[in-house]
Amino acid sequence: MYRTHTCGELRIADAGKTVTLAGWVQKSRKLGGMTFIDLRDRYGITQLVVEADAPQELVDIAASLGREFVIQATGKVVERQSKNPKMDTGEIEIALEGINILNKSLTPPFTIEEQSDGGEDIRAKYRYLDLRRGPLKRALELRHHIAHECRNYLDANGFLEIETPYLIKSTPEGARDFVVPSRMNPGEFYALPQSPQTFKQLLMVAGYDRYFQIVRCFRDEDLRADRQPEFTQIDCEMSFVEQEDVLNMFEGMMRHLFKKVLGVDIPNPLPRMSWYDAMDRYGSDKPDVRFGMTIHEITADVQGHGFSVFDSVPYVGAIAVEGAAEWSRKDLDALTEWVKRPQVGAKGLVYIKLNADGSVKSSIDKFYTPEQLKDIAAKVEAKTGDLVLVLCGPKRKTQTQLGVLRLELAGRQGLRDPKVFAPLWIVDFPLLEWSEEDGRFYAMHHPFTAPKPEHMDLFYSDKKEDLERVCANAYDFVLNGNELGGGSIRIHNADVQERMFQVLGIGKEEAEYKFGFIINAFKFGAPPHGGLAFGFDRLCALFGGQETIRDYIAFPKNNQGRDVMIDSPSKIDQIQMDELCLASTVKE
Amino acid sequence: MYRTHTCGELRIADAGKTVTLAGWVQKSRKLGGMTFIDLRDRYGITQLVVEADAPQELVDIAASLGREFVIQATGKVVERQSKNPKMDTGEIEIALEGINILNKSLTPPFTIEEQSDGGEDIRAKYRYLDLRRGPLKRALELRHHIAHECRNYLDANGFLEIETPYLIKSTPEGARDFVVPSRMNPGEFYALPQSPQTFKQLLMVAGYDRYFQIVRCFRDEDLRADRQPEFTQIDCEMSFVEQEDVLNMFEGMMRHLFKKVLGVDIPNPLPRMSWYDAMDRYGSDKPDVRFGMTIHEITADVQGHGFSVFDSVPYVGAIAVEGAAEWSRKDLDALTEWVKRPQVGAKGLVYIKLNADGSVKSSIDKFYTPEQLKDIAAKVEAKTGDLVLVLCGPKRKTQTQLGVLRLELAGRQGLRDPKVFAPLWIVDFPLLEWSEEDGRFYAMHHPFTAPKPEHMDLFYSDKKEDLERVCANAYDFVLNGNELGGGSIRIHNADVQERMFQVLGIGKEEAEYKFGFIINAFKFGAPPHGGLAFGFDRLCALFGGQETIRDYIAFPKNNQGRDVMIDSPSKIDQIQMDELCLASTVKE
Repeated sequence: MYRTHTCGELRIADAGKTVTLAGWVQKSRKLGGMTFIDLRDRYGITQLVVEADAPQELVDIAASLGREFVIQATGKVVERQSKNPKMDTGEIEIALEGINILNKSLTPPFTIEEQSDGGEDIRAKYRYLDLRRGPLKRALELRHHIAHECRNYLDANGFLEIETPYLIKSTPEGARDFVVPSRMNPGEFYALPQSPQTFKQLLMVAGYDRYFQIVRCFRDEDLRADRQPEFTQIDCEMSFVEQEDVLNMFEGMMRHLFKKVLGVDIPNPLPRMSWYDAMDRYGSDKPDVRFGMTIHEITADVQGHGFSVFDSVPYVGAIAVEGAAEWSRKDLDALTEWVKRPQVGAKGLVYIKLNADGSVKSSIDKFYTPEQLKDIAAKVEAKTGDLVLVLCGPKRKTQTQLGVLRLELAGRQGLRDPKVFAPLWIVDFPLLEWSEEDGRFYAMHHPFTAPKPEHMDLFYSDKKEDLERVCANAYDFVLNGNELGGGSIRIHNADVQERMFQVLGIGKEEAEYKFGFIINAFKFGAPPHGGLAFGFDRLCALFGGQETIRDYIAFPKNNQGRDVMIDSPSKIDQIQMDELCLASTVKE
Repeated sequence: MYRTHTCGELRIADAGKTVTLAGWVQKSRKLGGMTFIDLRDRYGITQLVVEADAPQELVDIAASLGREFVIQATGKVVERQSKNPKMDTGEIEIALEGINILNKSLTPPFTIEEQSDGGEDIRAKYRYLDLRRGPLKRALELRHHIAHECRNYLDANGFLEIETPYLIKSTPEGARDFVVPSRMNPGEFYALPQSPQTFKQLLMVAGYDRYFQIVRCFRDEDLRADRQPEFTQIDCEMSFVEQEDVLNMFEGMMRHLFKKVLGVDIPNPLPRMSWYDAMDRYGSDKPDVRFGMTIHEITADVQGHGFSVFDSVPYVGAIAVEGAAEWSRKDLDALTEWVKRPQVGAKGLVYIKLNADGSVKSSIDKFYTPEQLKDIAAKVEAKTGDLVLVLCGPKRKTQTQLGVLRLELAGRQGLRDPKVFAPLWIVDFPLLEWSEEDGRFYAMHHPFTAPKPEHMDLFYSDKKEDLERVCANAYDFVLNGNELGGGSIRIHNADVQERMFQVLGIGKEEAEYKFGFIINAFKFGAPPHGGLAFGFDRLCALFGGQETIRDYIAFPKNNQGRDVMIDSPSKIDQIQMDELCLASTVKE
């Protein structure tokens, strides 16, 4: 071992000990003949001192050290003259007796500090240097800790981690698969799994009634910001359970993680909200409930007063922004432009100001009396000093726009504190979504999601209105406006499955082609089962108080799906292409 | 929840309780008007009884149950009349009050018993049914348990599990990579990792001084028996360590696993054997030391007696087979044929029998007196009643043949008990292997393996004999004749690395092309580091007392790399091929 202690562990109680440390030179400075070296390793930073009267050889070596040199240093632990209360090791320093340079370092292309001076591109290229910085180190430590506690909880609850294959079969549905040409089976391909969904259901058929896996998944999508072509899931499935059992088990897991990893108590039981409430009150199926500013429908209150914009739409909704009555005309114009951007897509924005002096000012005061405006504001739970913002149009679309506006304003008002955690379940999703365009129903989750038992009559109805009302035994775990996980109770009954395909307009042949393998497996005694999966990268990021996942992945890819550090993907040899019986059709 | 208890937990103390179980019908039989049903789940089997005087409806349902039907059954726990001491639940049965058929089952294509009547192919096709059998269930439970305890040990020792990418870059060396065409970067490919070697070394450069990962690896090899194109490794690396630290840490891990998982104490410290000893005494770099029968060199003892076969070779070696003096001429002829098969490759087999009556009989008694033969036998530590078997030829080749013969005979004599565990480290590997064919040295492990510090002078020598004597800081963990893991201390010093490339005849340009990326990363302060990787599939199999890994993988592939259950690999759509800018060159 090159060291007796790490750079994070020595304290005043160790004074007098002779120790050997090893690590990287964070910085080195001369001060009145003495040399101070900050030595860094994974565990912390310890100050080393070479006294002015030290042997010349030692003074020379100390003077030769550059940033990020790797050294081994031996000396005596002594109490510091000027203590640094910000450092765990700030009460001591090491009076050096010897330095052994283990490796030199070129000057890093950016500073290895809490905040680096390097841009994103250069840090991505030298990821192995960026990973030396505190924020990334803490992110990966947190990730390890969460994974370990997750496994502890699931193991203690009788779950088996079972590894499923990565070289599987391409499926004709859903997002694009990454494929892997097979050399031994020329012309044929494996696919990388988008999730182990099929395999975990097969494991239920096989009787492994509590399965989990922390597992890599792959999706060849056009990447949006903060999406990765490979990502990690906590994938779980249980047999002989109802929705209630799944929710209890996994809010237990989240409670365990919050407590063990962050020391945070989350409510027991967790709040649950129906999908309908979430849409009506938050304009989102993943509501951020860290703050209020909920959406209120005011359609009945505003219609019939001669304002044709409101009279001609099915839905008018509003939110109240606390203390924003004083916003200027310019502010409101800018906000109007903001909601009219294609990303939000509203036609316009109506406001009602409840001024501090008790007066009311609105962009629609031509059509409504001050009392009427105050009544509307009261409906939205606005108080004196608040600003009411109104959007109108088709119901769900307008609610979604209000939801986006709500998040934006909460962000501006500092209401989205990443250290505050507001987890909840969204339940009672509609089973089916009607597509006007295609004139047919689609499964909101997937065609194996079970309808609620109490909605079975509706499910077998011929009426579109009835089918639209069928709720699924599906659930999402939402944290701070992010869908962290989701799942469902699966259909295990062949008749119900057949009805599902019928409702979705999937014929026997098509069902056989698309889902034949799993349907056949189900004929040999499939138990009732259900499960869910959590997005592990995002879970780690949110636990760390961050919105982006990139720093919680050791070696992420950029938005073009490239690893700029290793320069991948890249061309391969013609020999390899030939062995795989492949030719490129790219025009050079 | 569909059950109050599992099928494995009810005991006599539960008598009188009303319980609900859920599971699969293992079997059902009528006996004097009563129906007995064995209900199975992951946790065990419980006997259910429908009395002769039960309501007709219940009797009818019980009569309708087929094998592998999934049912929910409610009744009272009662003491059994005829107890079954072989079953954990054998003292009780459930007097049924109700049965709810949750799902019917087609008749499975083979029996779901400890020993199935199904052939390998049909069981592979219906893997989800084969996985219901006890041996496979116990295998996957064992695998989960080992992985969990492995993580516990490493976490407790400050290791971080850090996930490395699966979509990486194809490397021009070593075994074939599986590649993944990139749609977003047409004409370019990712590769699936053969191991996370580069990334774990980068993590050391990044300062994460104790890394591990239980990780999938991929190798597109022509498959031999019991090899899988995807396999799992326990991959580990440490910084600021010497070989001794790595060996201590990981024999600690193995000790923890043996104790926690199997309740077995392995020696502390573990035996270590030099590669040279292993080759000389066991004819293998992965010696099975559960039994003796070691190889003895008898070259000097047998040469110069006029037997030209021995006189003309550089090496003569022998083993003593206990109690085998009585083997017949026919046995020995068969054994001679066996060693002459190309898989062993010996030219012939000489024997010396130390008969029970004190006489000696040998195939070479024309050339040696009985006393000389007895002296030779004594050298091989043969006793009266033993058989000495002699092979000769080039040294290492002959030792290897004797090693194979030794294993074969030990197997026949029942000396390879899978419940006996004899782990050890093999150390002091040669750093370099001379290839007569290419007239150059190759790295025995890989070009980043460090020479032993005490062999540095030899390493810088110009003489071939000196270089052949350089030992590496490399080590293998061997269990019962299997190499379960291996690794090395890596070169972190640029000068030593340069010398290594020089010895291997790798020029600057070639080194830059093949290893440039990692060499450059090392310029920014690489710490001394080393590590190892364990083959997790085989570790599980050996812990389970099996020689083949297939049952320790939930969904394995066959020897053609096919998953016959999901029928993969398979053809993909032309649309997919077009999106990937690929054309097949397979002639239909």
